[in-house]
Amino acid sequence: MRRVEILRRINAQYHGRPPVTVRVVDWADEEGARFGKSLFGSSACAGSLDMDEARGLRDKAGVALPEALKNVGVDFERVKESGKELKNAAAYLELHIEQGPVLLDLGLPLGTVLGTFGVERHAFTFHGQAAHSGSTPMNRRKDAFLAAAKMGAEIYRITDRHGGVCTIGSCTTRPGIVTSVVEECRITLDQRHLDGAALARMWADAQAAAQRFAQEGGVTVTHERLWHIEPRPFHPALMDFCDEAIAEAGAPKKRLPSGPLHDAAETCGAGVPTVMMFVQSLHGISHNKIEDTKEEHLEQAVVAFDRLAEKTMHWIARAKTGATG
Amino acid sequence: MRRVEILRRINAQYHGRPPVTVRVVDWADEEGARFGKSLFGSSACAGSLDMDEARGLRDKAGVALPEALKNVGVDFERVKESGKELKNAAAYLELHIEQGPVLLDLGLPLGTVLGTFGVERHAFTFHGQAAHSGSTPMNRRKDAFLAAAKMGAEIYRITDRHGGVCTIGSCTTRPGIVTSVVEECRITLDQRHLDGAALARMWADAQAAAQRFAQEGGVTVTHERLWHIEPRPFHPALMDFCDEAIAEAGAPKKRLPSGPLHDAAETCGAGVPTVMMFVQSLHGISHNKIEDTKEEHLEQAVVAFDRLAEKTMHWIARAKTGATG
Repeated sequence: MRRVEILRRINAQYHGRPPVTVRVVDWADEEGARFGKSLFGSSACAGSLDMDEARGLRDKAGVALPEALKNVGVDFERVKESGKELKNAAAYLELHIEQGPVLLDLGLPLGTVLGTFGVERHAFTFHGQAAHSGSTPMNRRKDAFLAAAKMGAEIYRITDRHGGVCTIGSCTTRPGIVTSVVEECRITLDQRHLDGAALARMWADAQAAAQRFAQEGGVTVTHERLWHIEPRPFHPALMDFCDEAIAEAGAPKKRLPSGPLHDAAETCGAGVPTVMMFVQSLHGISHNKIEDTKEEHLEQAVVAFDRLAEKTMHWIARAKTGATG
Repeated sequence: MRRVEILRRINAQYHGRPPVTVRVVDWADEEGARFGKSLFGSSACAGSLDMDEARGLRDKAGVALPEALKNVGVDFERVKESGKELKNAAAYLELHIEQGPVLLDLGLPLGTVLGTFGVERHAFTFHGQAAHSGSTPMNRRKDAFLAAAKMGAEIYRITDRHGGVCTIGSCTTRPGIVTSVVEECRITLDQRHLDGAALARMWADAQAAAQRFAQEGGVTVTHERLWHIEPRPFHPALMDFCDEAIAEAGAPKKRLPSGPLHDAAETCGAGVPTVMMFVQSLHGISHNKIEDTKEEHLEQAVVAFDRLAEKTMHWIARAKTGATG
């Protein structure tokens, strides 16, 4: 609805003939909740979608992604043809709820997004030895949980050094019974940073720590990469416009990175000048029933995003004139 | 077979009239692998079996314990009647594989068991808040895994202070996905000690540590007792006989506690003078395909256990004479 308001304003102001073509895009399945694959529509359009991987995805009921698409009239094998719509795009703008507490903590309604974090996503598996909980002296144990558990506090030390964020989201134990030392412990690690070099250092530190903890406990550790994406810094000129637009909507300027991924990461990766604007999350949390944004912040967001759209149109028009003049 | 050898020797030596009645007992389901309840037969006989709890136990296929017993001709509701067999027992002797590495590390074939450890078995559940792994700054997290993971190393500090053994055997995380801070983390804790007061201190320390780690991380913690048993110290006179019997079999004397529970813990708890003899575990591990004992140690064990039976018979006979004389 916010975006339709802006289209209406542009249409009215320019009597149906704006300086550049303006389009609204509704990306398919940003969250990926059903098939476990986020940014489906935008990655297809940007050309980065791994077709073989996506072809094999199934939901909990066993329905394959291509089958689900067919049921809504979409041919999976042709999804990348949507890329032609992005071919001549001169800019991409996205307004999103922050999904975090940064703007809330600062008491700000809006922010200019610096880019989306790069992500290193791995699983570590520590391999020890199952042994009877009653008969195995402490100094004879090869306790996979002990080594894995040390990573819990270590990731906070890693972000103290490098910034960014690190999360251990899951921990599983085998045999996982109350009367046995843990033979195998698997933890997942998600590391994010806006700076690619810093992200690489974070990942190197995590690997070194896992090796050290394994060695201390007489266990071994292996890891597998689950996913990876480079940081996607947004366009400098568009970020300036976003700052100005926020100020013109009566709010203080603020730049912040985006921890979560967004469709903007895909357009940015496809070489389209991109920027995002964030609006404050109430309670600072997301993917939760209480996720919300105040009415007044929504109004301010629409005003600011409209200003950003106007500035961007003129920037593109000027560039075109320059190119042909 | 080992026990039958001893009965044969006694029968031959005393021409079928030993100084006291000697019986061999084959306890039902010591391990409890099928229904998750160990010491079934001995706890029924000793009278400590919780009938209501046992009545509700089911195996993985959904078969109830009373039904499984019925299929082998045993009436569950009458299992405690077996207690009359234990009523006049003057002593109980048990020979068992150590299931741990203590005798192996010392190069000893046999040991006298001091008693079975008391056990405090609990689950801690840390309650934090799920939050997006990308958008939630580290200092805003309520990370249930961070708090639970600190217990991993803490239990080793607890045993450094008090002796005994502590094991975290399982760890589960909710929602348990790579992109979310852990909202709920549950760990099981098994603590064992031969000294009841020391065991109580171990459990108090674990609770205090869990509270401290929860507070440090802005999360809360609850716990539930899964199981508990008092330490069961064996009979001093029988332990002396066991030491002597081991020496007479040509092995050095050694006393050690039993971390695992055994049927002897039930007879001891029922007031029957009890002792156990351990024989070395190859590789020092148990509940594993490679669990084994050397032939020569088995032979030595049979000789020593036979000596122990002989000494115990005469001790009982002497006591009877004393009582009636």
